[in-house]
Amino acid sequence: MSDSSVLTMTIDSTKTSVTVVGLGAMGAALASAFLEAGHPTTVWNRTPARAEPLMAAGALRAGSVAAAVEDGGVTMLCVRDHAAVRELLDPLADRLAGKAVVNLTSSTPEDARSTAEWAARHGVRYLDGAIMVPVPLIGGPDAQVLYSGSAEVFEEHRGTLLALGGEAEFLGAEPGLASLYDLGMLDVFFAGMASFLHAAAVMTADGVTARTFLPYANRVMAILPATLEGLARDVDQGRYPGDEDTLDMNDAALEHIVVTSRARGVDPGLPALVRALTRGAIADGRGGEGFSAVVEQLRSPGAATPGRSSA
Amino acid sequence: MSDSSVLTMTIDSTKTSVTVVGLGAMGAALASAFLEAGHPTTVWNRTPARAEPLMAAGALRAGSVAAAVEDGGVTMLCVRDHAAVRELLDPLADRLAGKAVVNLTSSTPEDARSTAEWAARHGVRYLDGAIMVPVPLIGGPDAQVLYSGSAEVFEEHRGTLLALGGEAEFLGAEPGLASLYDLGMLDVFFAGMASFLHAAAVMTADGVTARTFLPYANRVMAILPATLEGLARDVDQGRYPGDEDTLDMNDAALEHIVVTSRARGVDPGLPALVRALTRGAIADGRGGEGFSAVVEQLRSPGAATPGRSSA
Ligand SMILES: NC(=O)c1ccc[n+]([C@@H]2O[C@H](COP(=O)([O-])OP(=O)(O)OC[C@H]3O[C@@H](n4cnc5c(N)ncnc54)[C@H](OP(=O)(O)O)[C@@H]3O)[C@@H](O)[C@H]2O)c1
Ligand SMILES: NC(=O)c1ccc[n+]([C@@H]2O[C@H](COP(=O)([O-])OP(=O)(O)OC[C@H]3O[C@@H](n4cnc5c(N)ncnc54)[C@H](OP(=O)(O)O)[C@@H]3O)[C@@H](O)[C@H]2O)c1
Repeated sequence: MSDSSVLTMTIDSTKTSVTVVGLGAMGAALASAFLEAGHPTTVWNRTPARAEPLMAAGALRAGSVAAAVEDGGVTMLCVRDHAAVRELLDPLADRLAGKAVVNLTSSTPEDARSTAEWAARHGVRYLDGAIMVPVPLIGGPDAQVLYSGSAEVFEEHRGTLLALGGEAEFLGAEPGLASLYDLGMLDVFFAGMASFLHAAAVMTADGVTARTFLPYANRVMAILPATLEGLARDVDQGRYPGDEDTLDMNDAALEHIVVTSRARGVDPGLPALVRALTRGAIADGRGGEGFSAVVEQLRSPGAATPGRSSA
Repeated sequence: MSDSSVLTMTIDSTKTSVTVVGLGAMGAALASAFLEAGHPTTVWNRTPARAEPLMAAGALRAGSVAAAVEDGGVTMLCVRDHAAVRELLDPLADRLAGKAVVNLTSSTPEDARSTAEWAARHGVRYLDGAIMVPVPLIGGPDAQVLYSGSAEVFEEHRGTLLALGGEAEFLGAEPGLASLYDLGMLDVFFAGMASFLHAAAVMTADGVTARTFLPYANRVMAILPATLEGLARDVDQGRYPGDEDTLDMNDAALEHIVVTSRARGVDPGLPALVRALTRGAIADGRGGEGFSAVVEQLRSPGAATPGRSSA
């Protein structure tokens, strides 16, 4: 979304008016998307200068956050963190009573629940959201935002939320769900990136470029969905049969990865942690079970993994 | 591959004769695949009884490993580990001189190189291989075996190796390459499985089943190839621009994952390890760079990750 494209939008006064509080990289992208979709858009940012490009594109700047939230049919919050959210919302309880607030600030499920409880106490209609994509995708077809909390707010403003692009997906009334799914997906995403970088550090030590290894890593990405399906079935059934592989076999492979990593001066922490989980499960008598049995290890508070001690 | 299908094969005496040493779960599957493809097949196993089902399917059982390797146009080894390989091969040096040996026992690149050096000293023609799939896929279209070492042995026996199914892929003359790629792929595979189980432990603590979360995890698998391409480019260029995200932003997300994990009594070791890598890079002044900068952290021997201390 270039500035020039923002300048071509026309405001449609029959559309829901939107207030965007927080104009960092993400908040500004949200406001731009609403403007592009023709929504009357009021903005506020702690540092007022950040509103200027949006004003040039048709946004109204409110002089105070209180005035900003008066203006909108729905208020979107996108600030640094949960602490900033509560600092902003607390003085506005009376003004927001009966109004719809959609909080797109990243947080933990506990933070989302606590804000939802605050909202319930003050009669504020609260929808929590988790933005799953980086700034450049906002407003485009690949945007992904997850929502949870008030189903009413979601239904009423679904059309407005779709201005952010892609699909608007409602996960349920429990307000922590959007954050929960967000963090689950990020958990898998970070491990995928970190393990690729670990493998790349090992490969490049032997003169194989990361780009040469890339298609091989991508073969793994292609088979993981079928593997994860098996793991998910085991986890939900609480049985870990180990039809194709066993923890004993996995342990040998992990040992090879750790040794190969260390031989190249590459930090073996990541495979060593997986090996520690595997060995914990083997020590619990699960050596003949499948890798899925590791979930019990992760749940058991006494599990001694390398990460735990210093975490 | 059922036993009955093994029984239907006919041996074609014009095909290369194959010796299979080691008839564990995998070695027996290899021998069955050669028999199915019509290769005259001689087998040997330390515990002789394991050869019986294969003899019923047309295999010849040799009375000693020395006699077994005399028989084959090519000898395939598939035993527990590198130590077993060397224990078997050492007394056979003279007999194997000038012969082709394909070692499909999983090992480290260093082990493969050391066996290749042994082979070179004794005039044995050596090809190393890494079997990338579980037993049931051997002989079928999805089998995957990587090879490195003697290009001559690979070319001469490519047709025979194709009896194992799928594609036979030669990675280069450096004998450690097959193991290196194998371990790199497993590194990514184990991290994918472990992180899914970690996320599932967190989700199920809140009443969301692993199968409910599965399609969301699979969305991550679908976007990772594009992400890894960016990481690979950065690693190979040695520059980590951070166009879409920065380590500072990642750190906040990882903190949320760790806190959310701990709040549910789930071992936070895996995300805590990734966070430690991220923080190490931030402490090195890379907070504004992209996640790819973590590769420098993994390479730096002083990096203090949780996994390192107890690894
Ligand atoms: N950027 C992304 O790609 C991305 C992706 C998914 C989710 N998110 C989430 O979106 C949210 C915003 O991210 P961002 O990238 O826009 O961050 P950012 O560029 O750092 O902007 C932070 C915003 O928060 C405001 N803020 C901070 N503390 C405040 C306080 N105490 N009171 C009022 N305002 C305060 C800042 O105001 P000032 O201008 O006055 O400092 C600024 O508008 C975060 O929760 C982030 O996790 C971002
Ligand atoms: N199974 C898989 O899905 C799979 C997948 C990829 C790679 N691999 C690799 O394939 C290799 C074999 O695996 P597997 O599943 O077949 O293992 P397995 O069922 O445990 O069989 C081990 C084999 O090694 C033999 N052996 C062990 N120590 C020996 C020694 N000192 N001298 C002679 N023979 C010895 C055993 O003979 P006895 O019968 O006398 O004990 C048996 O034939 C391993 O390197 C494994 O990593 C396996």
